[in-house]
Amino acid sequence: MKKELLYQGKAKYVYQTDKPNQLILAYKDQATAFNGKKKETIIGKGRFNNLISAKVFQFLHDKKIPSHFIELINDTEQLVEKTMIIPLEVVVRNLATGSIVKRLGFEEKTTFAPALVELYYKNDDLDDPIINDQHATLLTNTTEEEIELIKGLALKINQLLIPYFEQVGVKLVDFKLEFGRNQSGKIVLADEISPDTCRFWDVETNSSLDKDVFRQGTGDLLSVYQEILNRLGEIK
Amino acid sequence: MKKELLYQGKAKYVYQTDKPNQLILAYKDQATAFNGKKKETIIGKGRFNNLISAKVFQFLHDKKIPSHFIELINDTEQLVEKTMIIPLEVVVRNLATGSIVKRLGFEEKTTFAPALVELYYKNDDLDDPIINDQHATLLTNTTEEEIELIKGLALKINQLLIPYFEQVGVKLVDFKLEFGRNQSGKIVLADEISPDTCRFWDVETNSSLDKDVFRQGTGDLLSVYQEILNRLGEIK
Ligand SMILES: Nc1ncnc2c1ncn2[C@@H]1O[C@H](COP(=O)(O)OP(=O)(O)O)[C@@H](O)[C@H]1O
Ligand SMILES: Nc1ncnc2c1ncn2[C@@H]1O[C@H](COP(=O)(O)OP(=O)(O)O)[C@@H](O)[C@H]1O
Ligand SMILES: [Mg+2]
Ligand SMILES: [Mg+2]
Repeated sequence: MKKELLYQGKAKYVYQTDKPNQLILAYKDQATAFNGKKKETIIGKGRFNNLISAKVFQFLHDKKIPSHFIELINDTEQLVEKTMIIPLEVVVRNLATGSIVKRLGFEEKTTFAPALVELYYKNDDLDDPIINDQHATLLTNTTEEEIELIKGLALKINQLLIPYFEQVGVKLVDFKLEFGRNQSGKIVLADEISPDTCRFWDVETNSSLDKDVFRQGTGDLLSVYQEILNRLGEIK
Repeated sequence: MKKELLYQGKAKYVYQTDKPNQLILAYKDQATAFNGKKKETIIGKGRFNNLISAKVFQFLHDKKIPSHFIELINDTEQLVEKTMIIPLEVVVRNLATGSIVKRLGFEEKTTFAPALVELYYKNDDLDDPIINDQHATLLTNTTEEEIELIKGLALKINQLLIPYFEQVGVKLVDFKLEFGRNQSGKIVLADEISPDTCRFWDVETNSSLDKDVFRQGTGDLLSVYQEILNRLGEIK
């Protein structure tokens, strides 16, 4: 079923399958931060991200969000629709922390209501610079209307995910999405939603349950990813 | 007529006058670049910027662009309406050069049509970071509609200034505007339009007739500012 490796990124291998418009995403046991400058092998991480992301995408599918997700294959692999990824990192923020505090001087934990949507140009060589909507149309072969659609989908996903995580005691602080264009030209949610791509804080303690423990060296990655998977397991 | 110094920036002193809603901008003989890291006294520079900016604002006034400009007082001073400056640098680009080439990888001299409008948060401590429209409303006490109005005014000013400079052999490559809220709450064009705040290229040779000669140490600032003033002098 898995045919040639099409490409790989820092967290996943992307394989062609025998169906032309289906791919397998195979999650790596690798953690990276600061655009690859910090890098470590962590056995078991791939499984957590694969299972968590599959669970979240299944939920979003049930809520009628168009996405690439087809099905879980095994612990580290999932079947997805092949897309042309739009080179944007779409970041949604409910609370200020991380880069936005340093870059724009927002006070830590400032609430964004409505949520703040930011676009970054997905380009490792340029270090994923932040851009405005007009840059996005120029750099990514999208129209103004498509950028509006993408931002609207991102906000809708946020509105679905806030209570989804809240019910298991997890605050959705911010997260990054990627979108792709499928074979019929439709823009769908792609990539992953996991502790690699979200900031999750425990609602009681505000402690990080995400990649920040690796970025900042403040905790054990596997234990907090396991914690997120356990909590999502409570949801029927 | 000039009363107390209210504040000063890198290029101008701002004085209260005896009329509560009128200020005097007094242009300094100082050139700065790289957010003040490069700095030099250049006798005569203030006069050029004052005369050039007054001429351009008079033209925009005649074209019904709402602005702070009242009148020229003398070689280095002009009378303007007092505003609360909105801490935004509104940059309009017709051709790619400078930071946008480095930051986003646009090829040098890429044409932007329609012109590209960028917003920067005017904050020296944060090094004037680029922002999107939603950041702008959060950081500057403006509404979405006001940000749209500001961007619309910037594009309209661009459409007026391109042929204005073109007629004297000057290509308007890009420029920075500031807007303020006047005493009746109306948003008006403020600050200056000069070789300090615009990229001007000679239409024949593409040589810089602006502060880039100082930034890059490639020419004599006074001669090129004089050249711009001379050319504008040809316009009746
Ligand atoms: N449905 C999809 N179709 C095509 N490519 C995808 C899809 N989902 C994710 N990708 C891409 O797979 C690549 C590998 O992912 P990842 O390892 O996370 O990369 P990165 O290092 O850019 O974060 C990325 O370029 C990602 O955009
Ligand atoms: N009409 C106006 N009302 C109030 N302030 C103004 C007006 N026009 C310009 N200013 C402000 O005058 C200050 C001095 O200008 P300048 O020396 O160019 O400052 P900077 O170092 O920020 O570039 C700036 O803060 C500018 O925004
Ligand atoms: Mg990734
Ligand atoms: Mg200035």
